[in-house]
Amino acid sequence: MPPTDANPTAAVLIVGNEILSGRTKDANLPHIAETLGGIGIVVREARVVADVEEAIVSAVNELRARYTYVFTTGGIGPTHDDITAECIAKAFGVALERNPEAVARLERHYGDPRQLNEARLRMANIPAGGELIDNPISAAPGFRIGNVFVMAGVPNIMQAMLDGILPRLRGGLPVHARTVSCGLAEGRVAADLGALQKRYPELEIGSYPYFRRGDFGVSLVLRGTDEGVLDRAAEELAGIVRQLGGTPIVTVGSKG
Amino acid sequence: MPPTDANPTAAVLIVGNEILSGRTKDANLPHIAETLGGIGIVVREARVVADVEEAIVSAVNELRARYTYVFTTGGIGPTHDDITAECIAKAFGVALERNPEAVARLERHYGDPRQLNEARLRMANIPAGGELIDNPISAAPGFRIGNVFVMAGVPNIMQAMLDGILPRLRGGLPVHARTVSCGLAEGRVAADLGALQKRYPELEIGSYPYFRRGDFGVSLVLRGTDEGVLDRAAEELAGIVRQLGGTPIVTVGSKG
Repeated sequence: MPPTDANPTAAVLIVGNEILSGRTKDANLPHIAETLGGIGIVVREARVVADVEEAIVSAVNELRARYTYVFTTGGIGPTHDDITAECIAKAFGVALERNPEAVARLERHYGDPRQLNEARLRMANIPAGGELIDNPISAAPGFRIGNVFVMAGVPNIMQAMLDGILPRLRGGLPVHARTVSCGLAEGRVAADLGALQKRYPELEIGSYPYFRRGDFGVSLVLRGTDEGVLDRAAEELAGIVRQLGGTPIVTVGSKG
Repeated sequence: MPPTDANPTAAVLIVGNEILSGRTKDANLPHIAETLGGIGIVVREARVVADVEEAIVSAVNELRARYTYVFTTGGIGPTHDDITAECIAKAFGVALERNPEAVARLERHYGDPRQLNEARLRMANIPAGGELIDNPISAAPGFRIGNVFVMAGVPNIMQAMLDGILPRLRGGLPVHARTVSCGLAEGRVAADLGALQKRYPELEIGSYPYFRRGDFGVSLVLRGTDEGVLDRAAEELAGIVRQLGGTPIVTVGSKG
């Protein structure tokens, strides 16, 4: 995938039975992907695993060996099914320790010491060598160890944690997008689109049919790091669509 | 995870750059998970991979070795970025062949032979030995080979394909759920919840805090195959919540 070979890569590891059962629709992957893409870090893979030690440990170890960064969500709360921190410690072969700074943050947050029960104190257990990730919403921190960033699963907490992490990451050239939408069926555009991809190997070109409100058509999305090249290719593609009898709508970004 | 050890398992493999870029929010995993759960097939893992041959081939081979069934979505359309069928053929070490029955279906669908161009005919390329999966919406079929079911990425087409597949699957005892919701913070319930999980090793108990419309609380979800046990455990948990000063709301299913 040529546009992004030079970019740092990332994997997202979503920990949680509730996603695998269908109870909860994950909202974190799109947010993480778009946020990282904006600083030139390309999400290459995502996995959803159950709250099961072996599954979490092996996924973490596979992904951290393969990508520049790994971002995990979920499983760092106070209940028995929150086992991410101990699994990360196992994956790295280090001890899980009660982190004094994390304890201090929880003490400040809960005020009354009776509120800070043993279950909540578990949220201060951090793998040895881990560096805390701030949680401005509910205090219980995430952490970074090696190239793995461990975050909460609740979306607004995860988003706040990610905002705090961003300045620590090594980014790359931001990935930009142009979208050419039209009412043609994708099968009509396919041959010319494949030829365009061959002429622009530095871009990643995707074709996404849509069916909405009785309307159908296709969004053709071009991605790359050079906006000049993107604009040129989008203009060419708009010409192709016109030649096929369609009416192209060209937008900046990938949502068109 | 005791409730489901006897159940057949599944993995979902989502193929598509558009999910990894954050452009498109996957809607297929929750639908597949809930549908399979209803017939006692438990989704144990999901992966999202890019439209890249090596990534698709290795994910398919890892997952099909590990789970009873693998369900893939995406990458079976007519454009250059649709490479799932050829990747599945590679993963199984078989040829990719133009399937006469698939061609016949496309011919019927498009009517005018000029409409059925080479790009669209690619959608009739099926790994040797593959068995077609009906597509009642846009004709281009999915297929099954071994324990892998290859489906479209567009949600309504995927759902129709899955409906057609269900009768061919070996299910297990359906997994049922009860939810006990309350306005308590999960850290207050955590210790008693962990003890309840120990008393009911045959259930899978999860704790999901929520923050909605200024309201916060926690949904405690119990899953298992024995509804009598579920009702008993849910009643016990409601008692625990009451003792902690909360007002439990018990619902059937996992959405409460």
